[in-house]
Amino acid sequence: MAKYSIGVDFGSLSGRALLVNVETGEEVAAAVKEYTHGVMSERLPCGKKLGEDWALQHPDDYLEVFGSAIPAVIKQSGIDVNDVVGVGIDFTACTVLPVLSDGTPLCALPEYKSNPHAYVKLWKHHAAQAQANTVNETARKTGETFLERYGGKISSEWEIPKALQIAQDAPEIYKRADKFIEAADWVVWKLTGKETRNSCTAGYKGLWSKKEGYPSKKFFKALDPLMENFVEQKIGCPITPIGDKAGEIDEFASRLTGLKKGTAVAVANVDAHVALPAVGVTDAGKMLMIMGTSTCDIFLGTTEKNVPGMCGVVEDGVLPGFFGYESGQSCVGDHFDWFVKTCVPPAYFDEANKRNQNIHAYLVDKASGYAPGESGLLALDWWNGNRSVLVDVDLTGMMLGMTLATRPEEMYRALIEATAYGKRMIIETFEKNGVRIDELYAAGGIAEKNPMMMQIYADVTKKEIKLSGSPQACALGSAIFGAAASGYIELNTAIRNMSKLKDIVYKPLPKNAEIYDKLYAEFERLHDYFGRGENNVMKSLKKIKAEAEKC
Amino acid sequence: MAKYSIGVDFGSLSGRALLVNVETGEEVAAAVKEYTHGVMSERLPCGKKLGEDWALQHPDDYLEVFGSAIPAVIKQSGIDVNDVVGVGIDFTACTVLPVLSDGTPLCALPEYKSNPHAYVKLWKHHAAQAQANTVNETARKTGETFLERYGGKISSEWEIPKALQIAQDAPEIYKRADKFIEAADWVVWKLTGKETRNSCTAGYKGLWSKKEGYPSKKFFKALDPLMENFVEQKIGCPITPIGDKAGEIDEFASRLTGLKKGTAVAVANVDAHVALPAVGVTDAGKMLMIMGTSTCDIFLGTTEKNVPGMCGVVEDGVLPGFFGYESGQSCVGDHFDWFVKTCVPPAYFDEANKRNQNIHAYLVDKASGYAPGESGLLALDWWNGNRSVLVDVDLTGMMLGMTLATRPEEMYRALIEATAYGKRMIIETFEKNGVRIDELYAAGGIAEKNPMMMQIYADVTKKEIKLSGSPQACALGSAIFGAAASGYIELNTAIRNMSKLKDIVYKPLPKNAEIYDKLYAEFERLHDYFGRGENNVMKSLKKIKAEAEKC
Repeated sequence: MAKYSIGVDFGSLSGRALLVNVETGEEVAAAVKEYTHGVMSERLPCGKKLGEDWALQHPDDYLEVFGSAIPAVIKQSGIDVNDVVGVGIDFTACTVLPVLSDGTPLCALPEYKSNPHAYVKLWKHHAAQAQANTVNETARKTGETFLERYGGKISSEWEIPKALQIAQDAPEIYKRADKFIEAADWVVWKLTGKETRNSCTAGYKGLWSKKEGYPSKKFFKALDPLMENFVEQKIGCPITPIGDKAGEIDEFASRLTGLKKGTAVAVANVDAHVALPAVGVTDAGKMLMIMGTSTCDIFLGTTEKNVPGMCGVVEDGVLPGFFGYESGQSCVGDHFDWFVKTCVPPAYFDEANKRNQNIHAYLVDKASGYAPGESGLLALDWWNGNRSVLVDVDLTGMMLGMTLATRPEEMYRALIEATAYGKRMIIETFEKNGVRIDELYAAGGIAEKNPMMMQIYADVTKKEIKLSGSPQACALGSAIFGAAASGYIELNTAIRNMSKLKDIVYKPLPKNAEIYDKLYAEFERLHDYFGRGENNVMKSLKKIKAEAEKC
Repeated sequence: MAKYSIGVDFGSLSGRALLVNVETGEEVAAAVKEYTHGVMSERLPCGKKLGEDWALQHPDDYLEVFGSAIPAVIKQSGIDVNDVVGVGIDFTACTVLPVLSDGTPLCALPEYKSNPHAYVKLWKHHAAQAQANTVNETARKTGETFLERYGGKISSEWEIPKALQIAQDAPEIYKRADKFIEAADWVVWKLTGKETRNSCTAGYKGLWSKKEGYPSKKFFKALDPLMENFVEQKIGCPITPIGDKAGEIDEFASRLTGLKKGTAVAVANVDAHVALPAVGVTDAGKMLMIMGTSTCDIFLGTTEKNVPGMCGVVEDGVLPGFFGYESGQSCVGDHFDWFVKTCVPPAYFDEANKRNQNIHAYLVDKASGYAPGESGLLALDWWNGNRSVLVDVDLTGMMLGMTLATRPEEMYRALIEATAYGKRMIIETFEKNGVRIDELYAAGGIAEKNPMMMQIYADVTKKEIKLSGSPQACALGSAIFGAAASGYIELNTAIRNMSKLKDIVYKPLPKNAEIYDKLYAEFERLHDYFGRGENNVMKSLKKIKAEAEKC
């Protein structure tokens, strides 16, 4: 009898369940449930207004995903629920909420219904930037060692800035919360009735390391006296490595999902990181780029190195027995979307419509006609700041080389090339610091839809690129971990059985690579000139802009 | 009885006659004649194909302007032709043609009908770039002093490169030509039956100076042995200062135009330079910006200074008794046109249509809502290279500061601001070299239609700006010189009587000027970084582009 595993991928707007055959990797059924409350960035359900850069969610929405998408895939597939051996989940991160000791979210208490700090803070809640600055400054002052594991700086998206924001702005919520917990771990708790904490979110977003644990009491006290005992009081729970079993479906979860009580549940995971085994990677030096609005890079190393500007290195954070590395580019798909919304003239839309083509596809078609270097353009891909390797949100975009003959498709291509140069900068920075990267893997919509872009990445980085075989690499990765958690199948076997790649491999073309070497040298010089303090014009302009907006 | 003067302005596509009252400046009648052959940049009338960057005209078209537009304004106005005291003309320059000793254009000879070099080379014939490079290199080698009068470099648009191209590529035409003559002087010859050469084109485009004459024989021989005696053999004719009378309408011209035989004709002039008296400027330190696709700046000084990157300084070249200075920006209106054709999304055109607005007017409306610095953007206005002060056609455009929130109107405004910074760079370069500029005057369509732009120029340069009162400043200037040539009225009186300004004066707003000071400092730094050799990335990209296009 065939056995199955279910992966549930919690995104920013919806959750997706995927039912997969654990021997063949066949994706038998999939179902999506949109979050009822979506992303709350303007108002709470009660109508209360939120501040600038807020992004909240409602935890009930996650349970609705379990209650809707899991029964849907079981029904769709027609399989016997007894043949589901395990469940795995992955989540956006750091997406965090305050709960009571029994797991009840504070926002479920009537007295906190209209307190924004009682809700889930979604990964892209950027309103804790001041607190992130405090964390970075304090860590430097108290001599904490963790900053080096995160490329020298942490972001407002992470757990401690979000908790500090609560401690400072809503101390009553901070005090009432028995725990702060990643939504990833919270939904696993809801499935199993048992609190666990996974090494991936703890490591990449919670400042924990296997060797050093969490930052010191001294550090937390320096942040805010209220937080002195943050670790013991609010997040204390043993960390479970990725790949382990968290528990089993309990009575409540069985009723909610239709799964059999006792079905294995894997330790929670993060949406990007979980995708690495889905493309079959089980060893070091193979970087997976998950390409969407931004790009997240995940890969394995055999030793821990501190690399400037990486997002993090976490032991057991991606696969047990390895150091999982993460880096990222803040603006990839967002870039191209900005461009088509802002810079493409009517004639292009008319022509794309005539050809029944999406405007991106039309621009790619036109841009494909150009050879490397033929546009004469060069851009810095900093429309949304630079994550790796400069870790600087105050950098902005730049393009040069325009003439009166410059066409929109050339600028579009220049933006794509800029992200490829940014990728090469990341790879070379890792390599200079002793972390090997031999080949690239790509997942995400852009990677599938834009072969020109993939070829440019191969030519610029001079590495082969393989493509994820599943359009739902995250859910597939979760299903792999669900299968392994069951013990029915060993993790590496599950990866071998269930992972997939497309047949296509993008190989660098030496003729193109030679030209891109020259262009990259120009990019690198401008990257350092504008990005490393030689000319801080981008920051000066931001300052002048901020003053102008005040008036 | 009122007296009148006629100015005829020969542009790139048409000629315009303007009949003006010499006492009141009233513009009584105007008429335009499009050139039958327009600009020939693809083919000769016989069908013969032209090379890249060619731009020719047919001299018959100029006579058609006389034969059509002058009778039209006389008829329209209903005045007595006896009351027309004089005629003046201005022309694009350097627009030059080879002729026989009696003035017959070589292209009128049947044997040369299909030889492109026998036609008029229009100012924007850019196919003599190799020859311009030769002129610049040779001048440096033979130690000619003239380069300093032209900011250090001359352009392919000028007379000697165009003549050298003929000597090299069509020696039979070079040999057969008894003269090379500016079209400006040729049409005056056609009116008067007498060859004259004006100090404006000779000075600004022909390398002549009142003090030093033309370059040496040694120089011309070094250019090409065939050209050793170029001055004596091909252009030898005394130079007449601007403001003088060239001659009188002869029998032929009287029949052609309907003007009375004996009517005074002024020495020829250049379209930009002739506009200075039309805004009433008769003394030093008042810069007129003639703003169109590009901008040409004209003003007077009392001494001769060599200023890096100026287009030229010519004694008596604009008004007698002064040193006329010229500088320029290669890309102004062209810039904005490129932008609306290339970078403005459909929703903007839809909204502009709804409001029944031109897309430029719509963008200006939107951009007017921003305070200085509020866009966070900064651009270098080099889409078409940089004329003053860098004299470098190989520079290209640059913009930085873009974020995902950047809107088209902000980029549009940034391009406008870039041209204003470029203007301030020009003014400061003159001032650093001892040439005073106290106030600004503006003429041309853009100046009239775009008050936001004029205010930005005032704020950036911290100078008051007055606007030309006539939309036909060039033709009006020619009419002023026509009146003065007649002796009926003295030149300064004619200027006082006939010149005009609008009531509006743009004054710098101290609050804006303060912010623009900061932004200009950033512009200046990038201008020098990219423009003065510290980072030659723009040239490197052009080289890579040229190689890519070859493949």
